[in-house]
Amino acid sequence: MDSSEFRRRGKEMVDYIADYLEGIEGRPVYPDVEPGYLRPLIPATAPQEPEAYEDIIRDIEKIIMPGVTHWHSPYFFAYFPTASSYPAMLADMLCGAIGCIGFSWAASPACTELETVMMDWLGKMLELPEAFLAGRAGEGGGVIQGSASEATLVALLAARTKVTRQLQAASPELTQAAIMEKLVAYTSDQAHSSVERAGLIGGVKLKTIPSDGNYSMRASALQKALEQDKAAGLIPFFVVVTLGTTSCCSFDNLLEVGPICNLEGVWLHIDAAYAGSAFICPEFRHLLNGVEFADSFNFNPHKWLLVNFDCSAMWVKKRTDLTGAFKMDPVYLKHSHQDSGLITDYRHWQIPLGRRFRSLKMWFVFRMYGVRGLQAYIRKHVALSHEFESLVRQDPRFEICTEVVLGLVCFRLKGSNQLNETLLQRINSAKKIHLVPCHLRDKFVLRFAVCSRTVESIHVQLAWEHIRELASSVLRAEKE
Amino acid sequence: MDSSEFRRRGKEMVDYIADYLEGIEGRPVYPDVEPGYLRPLIPATAPQEPEAYEDIIRDIEKIIMPGVTHWHSPYFFAYFPTASSYPAMLADMLCGAIGCIGFSWAASPACTELETVMMDWLGKMLELPEAFLAGRAGEGGGVIQGSASEATLVALLAARTKVTRQLQAASPELTQAAIMEKLVAYTSDQAHSSVERAGLIGGVKLKTIPSDGNYSMRASALQKALEQDKAAGLIPFFVVVTLGTTSCCSFDNLLEVGPICNLEGVWLHIDAAYAGSAFICPEFRHLLNGVEFADSFNFNPHKWLLVNFDCSAMWVKKRTDLTGAFKMDPVYLKHSHQDSGLITDYRHWQIPLGRRFRSLKMWFVFRMYGVRGLQAYIRKHVALSHEFESLVRQDPRFEICTEVVLGLVCFRLKGSNQLNETLLQRINSAKKIHLVPCHLRDKFVLRFAVCSRTVESIHVQLAWEHIRELASSVLRAEKE
Repeated sequence: MDSSEFRRRGKEMVDYIADYLEGIEGRPVYPDVEPGYLRPLIPATAPQEPEAYEDIIRDIEKIIMPGVTHWHSPYFFAYFPTASSYPAMLADMLCGAIGCIGFSWAASPACTELETVMMDWLGKMLELPEAFLAGRAGEGGGVIQGSASEATLVALLAARTKVTRQLQAASPELTQAAIMEKLVAYTSDQAHSSVERAGLIGGVKLKTIPSDGNYSMRASALQKALEQDKAAGLIPFFVVVTLGTTSCCSFDNLLEVGPICNLEGVWLHIDAAYAGSAFICPEFRHLLNGVEFADSFNFNPHKWLLVNFDCSAMWVKKRTDLTGAFKMDPVYLKHSHQDSGLITDYRHWQIPLGRRFRSLKMWFVFRMYGVRGLQAYIRKHVALSHEFESLVRQDPRFEICTEVVLGLVCFRLKGSNQLNETLLQRINSAKKIHLVPCHLRDKFVLRFAVCSRTVESIHVQLAWEHIRELASSVLRAEKE
Repeated sequence: MDSSEFRRRGKEMVDYIADYLEGIEGRPVYPDVEPGYLRPLIPATAPQEPEAYEDIIRDIEKIIMPGVTHWHSPYFFAYFPTASSYPAMLADMLCGAIGCIGFSWAASPACTELETVMMDWLGKMLELPEAFLAGRAGEGGGVIQGSASEATLVALLAARTKVTRQLQAASPELTQAAIMEKLVAYTSDQAHSSVERAGLIGGVKLKTIPSDGNYSMRASALQKALEQDKAAGLIPFFVVVTLGTTSCCSFDNLLEVGPICNLEGVWLHIDAAYAGSAFICPEFRHLLNGVEFADSFNFNPHKWLLVNFDCSAMWVKKRTDLTGAFKMDPVYLKHSHQDSGLITDYRHWQIPLGRRFRSLKMWFVFRMYGVRGLQAYIRKHVALSHEFESLVRQDPRFEICTEVVLGLVCFRLKGSNQLNETLLQRINSAKKIHLVPCHLRDKFVLRFAVCSRTVESIHVQLAWEHIRELASSVLRAEKE
């Protein structure tokens, strides 16, 4: 394919994308396929000779689309949102064309420098403490990771390295293994599974702290665990606070937990993967109070800030904590500027070596929406979740399970878990809307997450009518 | 931006991309900027109100392009190639529009299933042993990772989990820390820095095996290290063999090393990040002989197989080795099919949770080029590197440092390292072409890597003329 054919096919693809997103409401949100559906539809081996582009495009509707879960349908209320906006798509096209691999400053200075400045822009939108910003001579700064899981892992590894060096400096006879055996990380029992996984990868113990009645980690429970472990000769080194848990969007008590971490000299990482985007609105910024106690903070603009996946924003107060944990400098990656102290080689901040020019997406989105446009977007979603909440509250057969703070509503039919599992099964097999469940303590709960960029009040109302009807049918069947 | 504006702006962007790539030869391959160039050019904070799209586009040429290292210029001969093709860009546009996060089968069945089948297609192109393919009921299979670094890390973690469980099954009193303290991984002294990093992250010892005169890891050196370590009570568990090292594209002796790993019960991982693409050509497939001894194999189609970054292809013989190391199943990610044994939840195969629909790129590229087209592309690059090699050999002032097998030529001026460092400095500050160096033992060496999709014989000749002229000038200056 030469550039003149790309001009033609690219423009057709732009139209296909616009058509797809304009018409997405008309597609069943959840696909009607069984595992293994795709393999029989395509050849067993790659073709020897080139095929016609028309044949490939035809196969998109024939083979791919029937198996797609349409995350951007206004009837998609599952998981958490994943961002989709036209400015981000345009920036991603440009990113693909430039196609640089920004592992070092020299590998593409614009790629590194725009990222540093965009992370400062975003940090300022969130009113992050100055210490997290790179500025012209700061010790902190931001980096785009691929996902919150990676950010948590990177923070844990940095904390592990830091505490190991401190302990070895004091007692040079200590081996790394002897230290690692005693290291303990902590997080709430409501934290995302990726925190447990980070502990597993890092080879350290991870203890879950029982959350309180509001699914929030409190100082008392954490303090108790710390005291017990210290008394047993263990070494607490890392705490993950979640702001906006995946199950029910609950918030750990950062203002209580933060000072304890600082007092104990334990690295504090904040995972606000979903909720973080809301902190650009003054009325939600208080949820981030206490961030000043943290060593690292992360949230996903690729969830709720209109910057398409992947773009997970992570800040640290001391960039040398990250780079110190990872730095490797082979000759083929050295460049003349790297020891100047002025530049950033992002490969030392992350797990992979390669990285795309992802800050272009942030730049396009922030400029095309403006801060006010982004705030309006967050507010619209929060208003829609409250609208859904009030609909649920009007029906005495249902209950709201947790306080609705942002765009997630946890609800259930009053009654058994079995009843609610049946209801969810009916909802997802009807394929008109898509939801996923969670467990809150021993209760099976339905999650209604406002997700799509194009979701409006009418979709929420239709979704609720649909759920009510299915609930009636499930309740009738139960009585029979 | 609504869909009708996206139609307009998207088409403009397609033309901008085609113009950029058509005219890339006219841009200086390496940017003329100093660290910190970008920050003064843009505001300190994000705009409150939306900006005009025209202003953003204008800033691309004004602010971004002056700081871009043009990886797709035919005068870019640095690092290794990173893939760029129009079919991959079209597929990536579609991937961005569908915007699903394929962490589980249910999150988008097409995303998971196309990946499994594309990895089988690619595995067959390489003539991988049947055991690495998923097929309909295989125990192995492939997954797209973001980078070779991640693939190495994932393999090391899987191996660590496997050996830990085996040892604990035999001796239940052993703690994980007691085992980890004794685990040792091995790789050649020529291996990529990411292998050392994987050991660091995984918290295990990593020993480098001295390579032979051809920069190849041999059985004798590995065996010696294994014996010494076992005698000292350590536990060898993981070996990384590199096929096509970053410094000089040398090949570890897989046919020697493989059987030792199998005999010792040590996990063998093959990193063929760059060279792997060449194995689709029958005349280079012999370089992969011995892959049957490996537990995992990885290479980067995003380097040399025209599938844009990121797309790092990894296969394992036993998928349960990977999933066993990572499996976490919170309720919000459970779905009705997951226990059927028929389906794949790729989140258990990788570090991050989220993942894009990257197999679309493979599907578009494999079909638009056909296997023959891809083979022709590899052969063209190899022919160009041999052309450069023969030009160098004709000039008695220069020497070729290692055998030229694929698309990389390692060469230097006969003489001191200082002389060669000066030559490289002159080359890169002239900015007509771009190269990076390596160290081979104590020698400073220049690497000439054939990179761009559009590089032709004329570019290689012009590059060589330019190098010769600068060499003459450097040699003259030395004499004075």
